[in-house]
Amino acid sequence: MDELKPMDAEQLREYGHQMVDFIADYYKNIESFPVCSQVQPGYLRELLPDSAPVRPESLQDVLDDVQLKILPGVTHWQSPDYFAYFPSNSSVAGFLGEMLSAGINMVGFSWITSPAATELEMIVLDWLAKALKLPDQFLSTGHGGGVIQGTASEAVLVVLLAARDQVLRRVGKDATGRLVVYCSDQTHSALQKACKIAGIYPENFRLLKTDSSTDYALSPESLSEAISRDIASGLIPFFFCATVGTTSSTAVDPLTELGKISNSNGLWFHIDAAYAGSACICPEFRHYIHGVEGANSFNMNAHKWFLTNFDCSALWVKDRSALIQSLSTNPEFLKNKASQDNKVVDYKDWQIPLGRRFRSLKLWMVLRLYGLENLQAYIRNHIELARKFEELVNLDSRFEVAAPRRFSLVCFRLVSAQNDAEHANQLNRELLEAVNSTGNLFISHTVLSDKYILRFAVGAPLTEERHVLEAWKTLQEKAALLLT
Amino acid sequence: MDELKPMDAEQLREYGHQMVDFIADYYKNIESFPVCSQVQPGYLRELLPDSAPVRPESLQDVLDDVQLKILPGVTHWQSPDYFAYFPSNSSVAGFLGEMLSAGINMVGFSWITSPAATELEMIVLDWLAKALKLPDQFLSTGHGGGVIQGTASEAVLVVLLAARDQVLRRVGKDATGRLVVYCSDQTHSALQKACKIAGIYPENFRLLKTDSSTDYALSPESLSEAISRDIASGLIPFFFCATVGTTSSTAVDPLTELGKISNSNGLWFHIDAAYAGSACICPEFRHYIHGVEGANSFNMNAHKWFLTNFDCSALWVKDRSALIQSLSTNPEFLKNKASQDNKVVDYKDWQIPLGRRFRSLKLWMVLRLYGLENLQAYIRNHIELARKFEELVNLDSRFEVAAPRRFSLVCFRLVSAQNDAEHANQLNRELLEAVNSTGNLFISHTVLSDKYILRFAVGAPLTEERHVLEAWKTLQEKAALLLT
Repeated sequence: MDELKPMDAEQLREYGHQMVDFIADYYKNIESFPVCSQVQPGYLRELLPDSAPVRPESLQDVLDDVQLKILPGVTHWQSPDYFAYFPSNSSVAGFLGEMLSAGINMVGFSWITSPAATELEMIVLDWLAKALKLPDQFLSTGHGGGVIQGTASEAVLVVLLAARDQVLRRVGKDATGRLVVYCSDQTHSALQKACKIAGIYPENFRLLKTDSSTDYALSPESLSEAISRDIASGLIPFFFCATVGTTSSTAVDPLTELGKISNSNGLWFHIDAAYAGSACICPEFRHYIHGVEGANSFNMNAHKWFLTNFDCSALWVKDRSALIQSLSTNPEFLKNKASQDNKVVDYKDWQIPLGRRFRSLKLWMVLRLYGLENLQAYIRNHIELARKFEELVNLDSRFEVAAPRRFSLVCFRLVSAQNDAEHANQLNRELLEAVNSTGNLFISHTVLSDKYILRFAVGAPLTEERHVLEAWKTLQEKAALLLT
Repeated sequence: MDELKPMDAEQLREYGHQMVDFIADYYKNIESFPVCSQVQPGYLRELLPDSAPVRPESLQDVLDDVQLKILPGVTHWQSPDYFAYFPSNSSVAGFLGEMLSAGINMVGFSWITSPAATELEMIVLDWLAKALKLPDQFLSTGHGGGVIQGTASEAVLVVLLAARDQVLRRVGKDATGRLVVYCSDQTHSALQKACKIAGIYPENFRLLKTDSSTDYALSPESLSEAISRDIASGLIPFFFCATVGTTSSTAVDPLTELGKISNSNGLWFHIDAAYAGSACICPEFRHYIHGVEGANSFNMNAHKWFLTNFDCSALWVKDRSALIQSLSTNPEFLKNKASQDNKVVDYKDWQIPLGRRFRSLKLWMVLRLYGLENLQAYIRNHIELARKFEELVNLDSRFEVAAPRRFSLVCFRLVSAQNDAEHANQLNRELLEAVNSTGNLFISHTVLSDKYILRFAVGAPLTEERHVLEAWKTLQEKAALLLT
């Protein structure tokens, strides 16, 4: 058997160059793939062996398999014709940051396990906080600070746990069954999942109703009424999550009023700006997070619309000690002088897992290689493209815009000539299937006030005006076929 | 302002090649760095600006900063002189897999969002399960299956939640305060953290005592007695975690007997083989997981000692429906035909976060580019190097081996001539500080039966015999200085 040299610098160089070319070629040809994969469930098992090889195979064999067997099963999130869900940006800078992080491959649970990983994360999240004009209390130089979580789901979970434990320390752990969480029916399902994990009783999870009268934003009255009702029943309201840019329609909850109600009732106030947070680096969009001053925690996903490869979810808290009290462990085998002396941040105590990657590198590289001015222009361009798409929808009487456009998402639908609600829903379901199965574009859907609605989310880094126009053309063609 | 092209294929090619060379050069020179970073807390803030740049900077500027400002703050887990904690392997194959995953940059929460990501993960975890000779019930072809979690912490958390909810569905959710979890005092702190997250009462978390009489393995009697006692007090035992290769000393719990007790009392039986699981691909070490047949779930970290870059923690369960019942969400905006038809696996329902990276690529590339024979040889070589180190310790009467060596970890210490326990602990603390501050090697410590013990964990891919010999020389030199 050949001797295995699993980390030979010159082999890494040779193979690494091959892989760079493979990936660059992928981007060169990305428009040639169907955006949403068209394979059938189970397709891959028929193409691959039943067990791992005993003897080594060549890189070329593996790359051939990637080309022939893997890529057909990939839904191309980086395609310029990708308009589904929300974007998940890749960029040259983000990619380089991932490479470097994988190259160094350290596990930064404590400061000592790579001081640079912890310190760069603190510094870069301060940079981003300043770019977003977050209040100083969220900076790491005081009692708060930022931390990179994997996803917004983990971000909301860790702050929910911090809030839960804070209130239980006061009222006793037997009161768990009386704890109440508030959000709107537009809040991301991640909060409901976090509540299940944290043991919040399902009947104490308040999904407050919204409707088109507020453009699906939560009304302060609903929150304040719900809290009063629960207090009167002997329950303990302790957590409220507002959203800036909801998943269905990018609705924006009125932060200032909601924050006041939340604060005066002693609730932990979390803001989920996973998608729309990125836009707030532009002065003209910053007003959407006006009221963040009242929040205990704030989250935005740099991996969505900020050119930082997945995963990179930025969470800031005003009081890091609440997080640490809930999430710290201190086993003997991890003790070290720097931690014992309390001179450093150990991010293991701010998150669910112990180990963590050097994710700040990619965010740092995005900020440095592009600069804030370019990043602002990038956001503005997508918003402008979405505005153009909205204009096209408005010009075609067969369609309607189904919710106000604020950022780069357009909610729209075919209207039913019969004025029949179920028929209209069915039409739009069919239109979605029809356009996605062309492979020319990929869009997704939602339901608002029982209406099935199509979502056109601009935000892939390669998307240009021509892609938006082509997508609209396909939509119109498929609509025409459905309507005849 | 220059127009930003955040994803230009030719720029990715050019910059990607530069980064490959940067990383290959890093590995070429990796022995020139102090293994454990010698910087002081706060060092980086003095070297970087206070805010993000407005205008773009060049890649060369960033790489210069990595070289001059970041690398001094890195603790080099990939250095051949790294012997701390457990290894966290990087390899050419693992690195290429990370590159490809970052290149494709899809978010594989549901099958439809990239069928290949879900299907390759199922297939490759079946491959690995077969290499470990796990029972067929853990394969994805039945009711079980494997999933890649970020870390062993997340693996134990998700199965704990599945087990908690399973029992609460039977006894009612108001019984949470009566649920009891069992493990040994050698179990990783991740379980305690998972219990805090899941709302298990701290007084119902049983850290059963072990000692040198069983080489720090949990005795079946302790478990069975504890369970009986708790049942008699009206409590509800529901979860037990055994470990194969504990963090402190790689102790191995007796799985067969423990499993019987666990099964007959209706507990969920989880096996944490995060580190030592890798060794079990060798027939001669497979017996360490004999008894896995009785387990509900089994976990090993391919990112530790299996050449797969962090993060890649493989978790198998026999009953995937238990996981899914606890962790699924089904918001309208994620509904799709394949999921609704129940024809596919949606891994979002097997994990805490919603989004997930294409992590199976790197494990697939490791298995294919190296092959099982090479991987077995890789493991055996590290175990042989650890055996040699153990031999050296045994030959030097100033030292003792402090716990039996089973895999590639040697627990050892200086003995105190005065036979004074506190003096011996102090000596070893000082020896750890002394060798780590040379920068020539990095080791860590633990405490067993009140003894401060040094841990020498072989497992970095670049480690050869000469590095082990050099490390021992430094240890001897520093010991001599301390003992004069």
